[in-house]
This record gives sequence, structure tokens and C-alpha cells, in this order.
Amino acid sequence: MAADLYLGADIGGTGLKFVITDGIGNVVFEGEITTDPRSGKRTLARLALEVAEKISPAEGSDKGVFSRLAAVGLACAGIVNPVSGELSRSPNLPGWENTNLKRIAGNEFPDIPIALANDVNGALYGEYQAGAGRGCENLVMIALGTGVGGGVLLNGQLITGSHHGAAEIGHMVLDPSGPICTCGTVGCLEAWAGSVAIVKQARLLARVELKETALSQLVQEKGDNLTTRDLSQLAVEGDAASLALFAEVGHRLGCAVGNLVNVLDPDKVIIGGGVAQAGEFILGPCRRLVPNLVLSPEAGQLPIVPAELGPLAAAVGAAALARELVANP
Amino acid sequence: MAADLYLGADIGGTGLKFVITDGIGNVVFEGEITTDPRSGKRTLARLALEVAEKISPAEGSDKGVFSRLAAVGLACAGIVNPVSGELSRSPNLPGWENTNLKRIAGNEFPDIPIALANDVNGALYGEYQAGAGRGCENLVMIALGTGVGGGVLLNGQLITGSHHGAAEIGHMVLDPSGPICTCGTVGCLEAWAGSVAIVKQARLLARVELKETALSQLVQEKGDNLTTRDLSQLAVEGDAASLALFAEVGHRLGCAVGNLVNVLDPDKVIIGGGVAQAGEFILGPCRRLVPNLVLSPEAGQLPIVPAELGPLAAAVGAAALARELVANP
Repeated sequence: MAADLYLGADIGGTGLKFVITDGIGNVVFEGEITTDPRSGKRTLARLALEVAEKISPAEGSDKGVFSRLAAVGLACAGIVNPVSGELSRSPNLPGWENTNLKRIAGNEFPDIPIALANDVNGALYGEYQAGAGRGCENLVMIALGTGVGGGVLLNGQLITGSHHGAAEIGHMVLDPSGPICTCGTVGCLEAWAGSVAIVKQARLLARVELKETALSQLVQEKGDNLTTRDLSQLAVEGDAASLALFAEVGHRLGCAVGNLVNVLDPDKVIIGGGVAQAGEFILGPCRRLVPNLVLSPEAGQLPIVPAELGPLAAAVGAAALARELVANP
Repeated sequence: MAADLYLGADIGGTGLKFVITDGIGNVVFEGEITTDPRSGKRTLARLALEVAEKISPAEGSDKGVFSRLAAVGLACAGIVNPVSGELSRSPNLPGWENTNLKRIAGNEFPDIPIALANDVNGALYGEYQAGAGRGCENLVMIALGTGVGGGVLLNGQLITGSHHGAAEIGHMVLDPSGPICTCGTVGCLEAWAGSVAIVKQARLLARVELKETALSQLVQEKGDNLTTRDLSQLAVEGDAASLALFAEVGHRLGCAVGNLVNVLDPDKVIIGGGVAQAGEFILGPCRRLVPNLVLSPEAGQLPIVPAELGPLAAAVGAAALARELVANP
């Protein structure tokens, strides 16, 4: 039994999801541990313990507990240098900033090759290998989460840019008279389409409504716990204000997609992240707008589809990047 | 004497510029012929005659007049399929639309490999090989001409997209309350930064001015012949209205560059085309804005530079693509 397994981990601010796959990407185990946002070392040590419990050493190998692991892939929120291993900016993992993830992981998984990507690139690679992007070599992914992340794949390769600053799709400026974004600029996609922005906008709408509407009732009732899922539920029930709110998100998303298609002309655009669970309320207006914005009629007809892999996408993608690292070191 | 020369041609709506280079890109001859916008066949036959006069057949070869030509590269305005050779949309070459450029060129230059690109991609490849982009593998070019064209190079490869619709940077929407663009959409970069848009805006400004300003005098004097060069001259003389006009162009260009850097994070952005001759009047405001729009501080510091090769850029790039075709067929 040689090294035949691949570990893929998606490191989030609160939890770390992981999968172990075989050599063709079948998930043979999946799990989750708690992230320690102050310490990469403690978190990865915990991961190593958990993995050691799940896989037995290769028979006849003297390489120890991880002898069946051919490679490890890590997907991590923040600005990641996939070559050097450095994690620079990562707001949700304050104690991990300016550390070398490859080195820390190398201490826990010695002598095993380690692949690295940011979380949305991981998710995009997962969708490319095993989800909504199968069979396409040119893909754009937009992840509508708390903020808005992006990923770009061209000719089957993730585009990370000359300074690891590529695919920051959430900070494309769509309208200089738009709302202020968390990044300090005005009118970024994230200022409309991230869950923080949507919930904020819902609260504003509720405040300016004079009569007791379903939206203002919901906002009062949920208080600080209001989520886009609650708003989506209201839209399902036919509430006009919630529908208009998601239509605006879809419209702005469509502007961003139109711009991206005019620049990159991919096979497909994949919309992921928690907010994307509002589904057609967002995707419908987006799909209707895009062909009107794209110069090439063929390019403007591209499919704009929801992600398929759900919360495990980035872990699956990280495992696929680990396989890729072994296949094309 | 084997096939050691490369022909590169840039086919515009009125003229066709060409260069003949040696195997390392030195231009050994350059020339220009008139384009027949109604007939690709007649134009390329004229080109073949002109080239045949300039180069003698290889000694001892029985391959005829073009035996020294190792490959031909064509750069052509419009939507070009570099693989099949089809030219689809090309407003300035009405008689060339929906023809196969490779086939037409193959009749004139039989048995010689032919590379194809659109004009801005040709110019970008020229700048990459021999101009402002030397030594960079990730480049964005924006060509401010009558309209606004674009080119994207990643890992040394031109990005043409899944439907040959990529790099249409001029049609990135920057402001949904902006001016109407020739493409029918609102607020595209081209609606501010193409020469047609700039001249139109100058005429509008002149009309709303009540007193006799330098700008309104120029607009009256030049009539239909007003060019961005005239306006640029006025800016050199310190005219506030012209300076503000170019500053607005530079600001909108900066928005587009900011968005592109957030998506692609290239080494450098190259600004070409006739309008770019307004130089710092445009580049200054653009450069000041970009770092404020780009999320990654390192990516935001990238150089934004004028093109270096001038009107021959696309012909030089086409010849380089021809060399590339022979090196990596």
C-alpha cells in the first residue's frame, strides 16, 4: 500500500472542514474541527491528530503515521502566496497573518508535498474538478458570503496574479455613486452582494417603511440575528420588498458578471456562497442582464449557474490541488 | 539561405502596415499599403505583390518567391478566431466580415504558416516582445483609439476567451448613470475614453459655455475636423476646460484599470492608441486613482505606462506571433 490518499482542508475563521480523497478524487472521509483563529500551529496540530485517527499507516512503510498521504492541500481565507506559503492579509484569522502556512503544515505533515490556495480559489478548483465547472477550462466563480470573493480559472489554471492580488471580484467598482464598501471604496460589488451589505440594506428599508410590513416585522423580530436566509424565506412567501432587495443584488451581480465576461469570456460563471442560496431571486435578474452588457453575442449567452459542491467545495478543491501537485510537481 | 524572415501585418480600415523581421525580431523592412475595406482578397494580393518586391527568393530553393518567409502574422480589427481563421464582426472592414482570413492569406502565401490575432492583441504582443511590456509575463493593454480596445496577456499567452470575446475592455461598465456607448449600453469606458466620445464631450462643453472660451473657439474653428490632438494642444496651453476633460478621461480610465487589476493583478498596464498621446493629462489622474481602488496594496502599485512602439506595434506583434507559431506550432 503506497501513498494513495490526499488530504484537502478548508480553513475558515471558526471551523476547518477537511476531506480525504483517493487518487481519482473520491471522498473516502470528511470531517470538521474547530479553528483556533489565534494559532495556525494549534489548529493544524489538531487536524493532524484527527487525520491520524482516520487513516492507518501504509503496511510495510517506515514513514510513520501519514505514510498513506501523498499530498496535502490547504485552502485558506486571505491573501495567500501559493509558492512561498505566506499568508498575509486574513481578517478572519488574526493570529495566522504573516505566517508561513506551508512551514506550519510541514511540521505536522513532514515530508509531504503541500499545495496552497485561497478559499475561493479552492472552491473554484473543487467545482472545476467535481462540480458545476466539470468539463470547462475557463471559469469564473463569485462567492457571495459575508463579503464577496472570486476565483478565475483560465486554461485549467487558477489565476493568482503577479502579486497574489487577482480575482478580488468583490471589489470591482460598479457604480461610483453606490454604497460605501468595507474596503473603503464606493460602489464595489461587495457593497451590494455580500450578506453584511444585504442585511444592512434590509434594515435601512425596514426603517424607512412607515407601515408595518413583513420586512420591518422580520427585522424587528430577528434583531442582530437577521440573516439573508431569513430574507430569502420572506421572498419565497412573496414579500415585494425582499424580492426587490434580491433583484437589486442580482442586477449588480449581473453588472459584475457582464464586466468579467467582456474581459475574460469564460465557458461558465459559477455563483457560490451562502447568499447564493437565494437562488433564482438573485440569478434570474443577473441572467437577464448579462447578454445586454456583453459585446460578443456568443460570449453573452454563457451559463450562469449555482455552485454544486456546497460547503465542502474548497476542501475538495484543496485535495484536487494536492493531487495536481503530485501529478505536475 | 533557408526561410528566415517573418511578415507581420496590421490590417486597419484604411491602411495596412507591415513589417518584415528576422528570426530574432529585428525589423528589416517596413511598409504600408492601402486597405480595400470591401475586399480582403484584393488587399492581401496587393500585400503579396509588395512583399515579393522587397524580398528575393531563397537561393537554391524551388519554393518560389516567398521561400524566405518562414511564417506570416496578421493582426486585424474585429472579432477574430485565431484557430479557424474566421473574422466575424469588423465594423471598419465591411467586405471582410464573415470571411476566413487564413484561407484568403493562404492563397497569397501558399504553404506558409499563418498566425492571426485581433489588432489590440497584436499590439499588446508587440509591446510584450519589443516595447513597454518587455520582461513581463502578465500584461493588460488598453488602446484608446476611435473606440477603446483591450488586450490581456497571462503567463505570456494572449487571452482570447472561450468565444473569442475576451479583452473587450472598452465595454466594461463603469457607471450606470454614465453616457450612452456606441454598443448601446450605458457608461462603458469607451463612452468616456474613445476619441469619438472625447470630441463629442468637448462639443457639448463648448455649447454650454456662454462666453467665448478657448475651447468653444477651437470647436467652432475646427468643426467636424476637431481631434483629440487639437484638444491636447489646448491642454498644453493650460486651458482649464480641456485639462478637466482629459482629467475626467483619466479618472474613468483609472476606474477601469482598478477593476482590471482587482481581477487580473498584472505586472503592468500599458496605455496605447492615439488618445494616449495626451500623455500625463490622462495618465496622471489615472495613476493617482488606481492604488485607492485595488485591494492588494502591492498589486495597486503596478506601473501604468504609455505604449512604446507607436503605430507599428500591431505589425511587430503579428510578426512575433508568426515567429511563435514556428517555435511552438
